Amino acid sequence: MATHDNAGTTPPLTITDVTLDGTPTALRCVNGLIDAIGPEVTAQPGDDVINGSGMAVMPGLVNAHTHAAMTLLRGYGDDLPLMEWLQTRIWPAEASLEPDDVYWGTRLATIEMLRSGTTGFVDMYWHGPSVARAVADSGMRAVVSSVFIDGGDPARGAAQRSAVIDDVEAIGSYGPLITPALGPHAMYTVSPESLEWMGGVAAERGLPVHIHLSETQGEVNDCVAAHGVRPPALLDRCGLLGASTVCAHGNWLNHDELDLLAERGVTVATNPVSNLKLATGQIFDHPEARRRGVHVGLGTDGTASNNSLDLLDDVKVFALWHKNATGDPAVLPADEALAVASGACSPLLGGGPIEVGRRADLVLVRTDSVEMTPSPLPAALVYGATGHLVDTAVVAGRVVMANRVVPGTDEVLAEVRTRAARLRTH
Amino acid sequence: MATHDNAGTTPPLTITDVTLDGTPTALRCVNGLIDAIGPEVTAQPGDDVINGSGMAVMPGLVNAHTHAAMTLLRGYGDDLPLMEWLQTRIWPAEASLEPDDVYWGTRLATIEMLRSGTTGFVDMYWHGPSVARAVADSGMRAVVSSVFIDGGDPARGAAQRSAVIDDVEAIGSYGPLITPALGPHAMYTVSPESLEWMGGVAAERGLPVHIHLSETQGEVNDCVAAHGVRPPALLDRCGLLGASTVCAHGNWLNHDELDLLAERGVTVATNPVSNLKLATGQIFDHPEARRRGVHVGLGTDGTASNNSLDLLDDVKVFALWHKNATGDPAVLPADEALAVASGACSPLLGGGPIEVGRRADLVLVRTDSVEMTPSPLPAALVYGATGHLVDTAVVAGRVVMANRVVPGTDEVLAEVRTRAARLRTH
Repeated sequence: MATHDNAGTTPPLTITDVTLDGTPTALRCVNGLIDAIGPEVTAQPGDDVINGSGMAVMPGLVNAHTHAAMTLLRGYGDDLPLMEWLQTRIWPAEASLEPDDVYWGTRLATIEMLRSGTTGFVDMYWHGPSVARAVADSGMRAVVSSVFIDGGDPARGAAQRSAVIDDVEAIGSYGPLITPALGPHAMYTVSPESLEWMGGVAAERGLPVHIHLSETQGEVNDCVAAHGVRPPALLDRCGLLGASTVCAHGNWLNHDELDLLAERGVTVATNPVSNLKLATGQIFDHPEARRRGVHVGLGTDGTASNNSLDLLDDVKVFALWHKNATGDPAVLPADEALAVASGACSPLLGGGPIEVGRRADLVLVRTDSVEMTPSPLPAALVYGATGHLVDTAVVAGRVVMANRVVPGTDEVLAEVRTRAARLRTH
Repeated sequence: MATHDNAGTTPPLTITDVTLDGTPTALRCVNGLIDAIGPEVTAQPGDDVINGSGMAVMPGLVNAHTHAAMTLLRGYGDDLPLMEWLQTRIWPAEASLEPDDVYWGTRLATIEMLRSGTTGFVDMYWHGPSVARAVADSGMRAVVSSVFIDGGDPARGAAQRSAVIDDVEAIGSYGPLITPALGPHAMYTVSPESLEWMGGVAAERGLPVHIHLSETQGEVNDCVAAHGVRPPALLDRCGLLGASTVCAHGNWLNHDELDLLAERGVTVATNPVSNLKLATGQIFDHPEARRRGVHVGLGTDGTASNNSLDLLDDVKVFALWHKNATGDPAVLPADEALAVASGACSPLLGGGPIEVGRRADLVLVRTDSVEMTPSPLPAALVYGATGHLVDTAVVAGRVVMANRVVPGTDEVLAEVRTRAARLRTH
């Protein structure tokens, strides 16, 4: 996500009368980047202009792990035991998914993300090119991967290899804000042979990798039984642990494994809300991981297991979980939690802070609201607010939401309602 | 809260074109109660009328434990160790509190609660009559208690007794929606002599009691050391455990104590978000408590330790915590979680369901929103939404918020900003 910072032909954007870290200021964005910050900054003829009165500017948030199109399956089988949920709801519905379903489901997700302050995300789902098309139409920034699953069968994996390359090339055609990636689902659904092939492709083409890792205790035990090593060692052997890898979850990593991920420069996307909902028991040990130098991002996971894409909601659970787990209310303070949610604790995610020369992915938040009075930022956002206080979203210097309105919302809602009704047989 | 169901002179209210449990219908409210429900119900001349198109009607939520006026101290010393936070921030600021500060802080809280679907609450704070005046001006329903603390000194307690009676009588003068209560802070801040006196007054006057109980492991250990018994036994000895008692927290109750509370008909107000933020370690064992027949409500606690009053946010944490703690995603399903949040799992709180003859405390929620598409209720609300999808709030048949606008908000915000600035010396 850090590699593409130029939105092309967008006119410059000036944001006036806003506060930044509590101080009144203005910002001007040119060619997708922040060009000037200061009270003396004014709009030039031809600029787009936003009046930020009553609002604070902050970095757009980065959702480090999601399956955006799963909005289609939001609320389908909540509160069921895990295997019954997967076998009777999610998997049958996903078997009927058409590429256009994924397009519209992703469009709905982009609207929800923008309405809650997220300007970029890391996605893994079926029909990646349809995801990319939806992201391009939304104006957001994303790392997009197609799910790859061969059920542990190397022959099935080999047969799918050309499709992976086709997907990557199609995803890459949707403009500079979209980065194609490889999406091997997990070590328990992909054969070591396919994982190794993907490690080679990632290195050769410079592609990011997005994979689930050590989400449940069961998958760790199964890996040891099947392969004689724990999941991180297996991925490392396949060449999949590097500075362009996002591993989702990491709930059952031990200290040696945290050190390995730190050494390789891997980013872990923690998803505490999804983990709690699916009752994984243990959650990624963020304080320990940061002490050991692991890069971290915050994800919502898909809306079938959350069921929201509001990172300003999840960032509170993230911070509170670790305070309680450590017995120390001073652990994971609001500024650190918000930095993680904005992608600033991972070079790969590449978000925040707001400085001249950085990409202009910004949101404006209503600090004059009931919910944020009289609390100072950033605690107000982390503990007091949810995403509905986000008024405006800017990606690569272009306004993609103003006054909480994302163009095209009514059409997207209608499409998703129709398609979701078709996919749900219960 | 269940004792006063008549709002007096409010004109009847008809809500048209709304859905109830997924079915299109209409409702009419007369004299503070639900008078008729059904698709054939129409407005009569002179009725107030709300068009509920695109919205679902649900019971207003009941915040079972809060300190509403602490909006004044929201965000004051977040992320500090507990004793440093209390000693350098909260207690010095509270020492400077004037009755009018409490009035305006409570007003802000009532606006925030209405904007997130809460129509009733159980409060404990200084200057109870000022709380009651603010609640009356908001149109909400509340059980209002003044905090009582004698620092374990029976003489100091005896000197304060007439003030308690004065407060109760003043609180009771603010109309039928406000129930005065006794607010002994906790067994570790009030002498057994004062607790016993309060048990007598509660019985004699039929007053509810609102008290903190077994929030931290430390207070349980201290109680055993000081009194030779654990906190519930001490309260029971003082006559404070009964069907009109709300005990906040209950994190460190054992199974015998859950049985005692069930037998006495006590309501426990669980506050999972506050507990996580203050790192109490263990959280009230709701699934076990329900199995043993304990009445339960959901609270936010004060905004200095949450920092939000949005019960639709907290109800998600409530459900998810117990799923993960039990290792079972089917535990505490959405309908049960929402029933707890609406006060329906405690006769004392007395909320929900929506039936003819019940009190007309209702909210309308935007089911046509991005965040609730295409998910069915109640999971959509519990897992997918936060309070900002609440459009309209009705208390005792009277509209107190329409289109998310609560009259007087600007004045309240201005007052709170000024007063909060005065109270905060850091």
